[in-house]
Amino acid sequence: MTETLPALRLKKGEDKRLRAGHLWVFSNEVDTDATPLKAFAPGDGAVLEDSRGRVLGTVYVNPGSLICARLVSRDSRYRLDESLLVHRLKMALALRERLFEQPYYRLVHGEADGLPGLVVDRFGDACVVQVNTAGMERVRDSIVTALARVLGEGPVLLRCDSAVRQLEGLERYQVWGSGPERQTLEVVENGVQFRVPATSGQKTGWYFDHRMNRQALRPWVSGQRVLDVFSYMGAWGVQAAVAGAREVYCVDSSEQALDGVAENAALNGVADQVVGVQGDAFDALAELRQANERFDVVVVDPPAFIKRKKDFRQGYKAYQRLNRMAMQLLGRDGLLVTASCSAHLPEQQLLDAAQSGARHLERSLRVVALGHQGPDHPVHPAIPETRYLKAAFCRVLPAGSMP
Amino acid sequence: MTETLPALRLKKGEDKRLRAGHLWVFSNEVDTDATPLKAFAPGDGAVLEDSRGRVLGTVYVNPGSLICARLVSRDSRYRLDESLLVHRLKMALALRERLFEQPYYRLVHGEADGLPGLVVDRFGDACVVQVNTAGMERVRDSIVTALARVLGEGPVLLRCDSAVRQLEGLERYQVWGSGPERQTLEVVENGVQFRVPATSGQKTGWYFDHRMNRQALRPWVSGQRVLDVFSYMGAWGVQAAVAGAREVYCVDSSEQALDGVAENAALNGVADQVVGVQGDAFDALAELRQANERFDVVVVDPPAFIKRKKDFRQGYKAYQRLNRMAMQLLGRDGLLVTASCSAHLPEQQLLDAAQSGARHLERSLRVVALGHQGPDHPVHPAIPETRYLKAAFCRVLPAGSMP
Repeated sequence: MTETLPALRLKKGEDKRLRAGHLWVFSNEVDTDATPLKAFAPGDGAVLEDSRGRVLGTVYVNPGSLICARLVSRDSRYRLDESLLVHRLKMALALRERLFEQPYYRLVHGEADGLPGLVVDRFGDACVVQVNTAGMERVRDSIVTALARVLGEGPVLLRCDSAVRQLEGLERYQVWGSGPERQTLEVVENGVQFRVPATSGQKTGWYFDHRMNRQALRPWVSGQRVLDVFSYMGAWGVQAAVAGAREVYCVDSSEQALDGVAENAALNGVADQVVGVQGDAFDALAELRQANERFDVVVVDPPAFIKRKKDFRQGYKAYQRLNRMAMQLLGRDGLLVTASCSAHLPEQQLLDAAQSGARHLERSLRVVALGHQGPDHPVHPAIPETRYLKAAFCRVLPAGSMP
Repeated sequence: MTETLPALRLKKGEDKRLRAGHLWVFSNEVDTDATPLKAFAPGDGAVLEDSRGRVLGTVYVNPGSLICARLVSRDSRYRLDESLLVHRLKMALALRERLFEQPYYRLVHGEADGLPGLVVDRFGDACVVQVNTAGMERVRDSIVTALARVLGEGPVLLRCDSAVRQLEGLERYQVWGSGPERQTLEVVENGVQFRVPATSGQKTGWYFDHRMNRQALRPWVSGQRVLDVFSYMGAWGVQAAVAGAREVYCVDSSEQALDGVAENAALNGVADQVVGVQGDAFDALAELRQANERFDVVVVDPPAFIKRKKDFRQGYKAYQRLNRMAMQLLGRDGLLVTASCSAHLPEQQLLDAAQSGARHLERSLRVVALGHQGPDHPVHPAIPETRYLKAAFCRVLPAGSMP
């Protein structure tokens, strides 16, 4: 028999969003007279009820977080334990195995895979896990066991070091949940091989979300000169080189990233085509312009410039400036690939930022393709935050050629 | 020497949208005291000026239409003539030839290709043209000549029969602009062959816009049972069968369309896998449910339910109902492919319609991919109307499986 969970009661009307499909409870929505949040320790389970006591499902609670509870199941018989983790991992795996030939993908995309606060990226036989909430931290060991049960034994790195953990009052650390420990992780993406550092890379070590957009770039680059801004380990740039780009410049501020670009280029036999440029992206774009460099294709895939809603104005200006500077380096009939991972920047506003830059330069811009996060990053339609990645492929034509 | 064009002057402030990139002038934006619209015949050229007389470019005018002028060039030395048509066709062709191996695509997508009011679809050596405005009607013969100059001589069917011509006060008719006349047109899409009737098909005869979405469906259908609702000539269904679907039901209200499905299935050697079901889509969905039929994949790609903004409420309900009924036919872990070509239905609202249906059925829906019109239908970022097509690939899970 499982223990009985305490109740967490919502105020009147606050069940509506959850009934429409959302999984989050905000602290101001709780009837704290009936069920004080202070009675819960971070990560405790609870049965969520509406104001009339009707059960909505099982949640885990964090009294210190703005999102004070996340729904784990709409059936209150289930709670977040190893058995539920195994079940959800199997459902997540079924989707990926239907679509991917090789085991390199995001296996768990948090809320959208029914596991709020958990991210698992799969690098062959190894997994890198992000545990982002107190509720998930509580079952950290079960996550490792559940992964072994579903995928078989293999290295599991727990990168419990994301910035969002601060919102949950959690320490930031890294630890191997199971071994053997690895120095580097392997990725095969669109048939191209990469190696990335296991513990010192960005986020989980790889941005799997742009896989399809990098595939979509391939027909555009044959024989072309390509600029990859914010290149990190060369995911865009090295794949462009393998797809036949004549020359690829990869710009990144990190020396480690550019070492990775060089290693990955060599790994795929395209070292001669790929050039690393170390420096701040905006400075590097200005210098390339000064030097009168021109490219057929420019990819700008920056980190989120708008991390919080209140950063919108300043962040939007940064997107405008970046896209304008990128277009200044484009030849007559060039391709701008502009991306944003800011959930707070709607797709149309990314297009607006690019369009305003084009008008400023008196060039005509046409959007020929729009890309999103891949199917291993499902979107929960009731949780807009789960949909964050945008990529626009824009044809940029000379001044006066087209109205 | 070209003749001098008369001026069309805007009211104060009405140049702003055009300077931001838009191409349309609405009749209430014209300074009719300075330049009466009545002075123009439908299709006349003009030089567009702002309220202070600064030149914005060349337009063509239709005094009887709500959109009373469309910008043809931002350089007032150019006007809509054969030479400009040839130039714009070449730019449009350059984009398509970069991306398409075979000549089956939309060659001209109106405003987005700098040719407002003109659509040209290419079926191998034949073109089907839609002339949708009085300005384009005026240069109808030049369009045929320009196509011959850019593509070489070949059949050109002028399907001047779209409903939007009524807004321009134009007759609706069809005529071969050049021969030889054809009974059927050929399409090769994603490697699959199709034949469609030349003069009696819907629109230009083929919906090229979903090409990439049909390609994206392929990995989902192997060994599966697929339902294609609003199948028309079997673009989705026959391609699914070729990709290995075990059985495909194509539903359409038109007998001619289902004859086309059967012919196209036979043409690709999948006649045994494809079944035609004649009837109204909603009736057919209800009957299939009555008969307890279940499918692994259901595609719903209806005609626009929201043709005008004021139809939104009713149209949205139709999308909700259609998607709910489609999901009722899905097996345990099924795929719903839901599409809309209504420019007035934003993508998020299509997702909302599907999500509300899933919640109604107590099933969990996740969006695993989003699709749009292909690159032969470029989007003009300042003209939202040029972006109209949405497709969402949704995983639909059993009740209780995931919150």
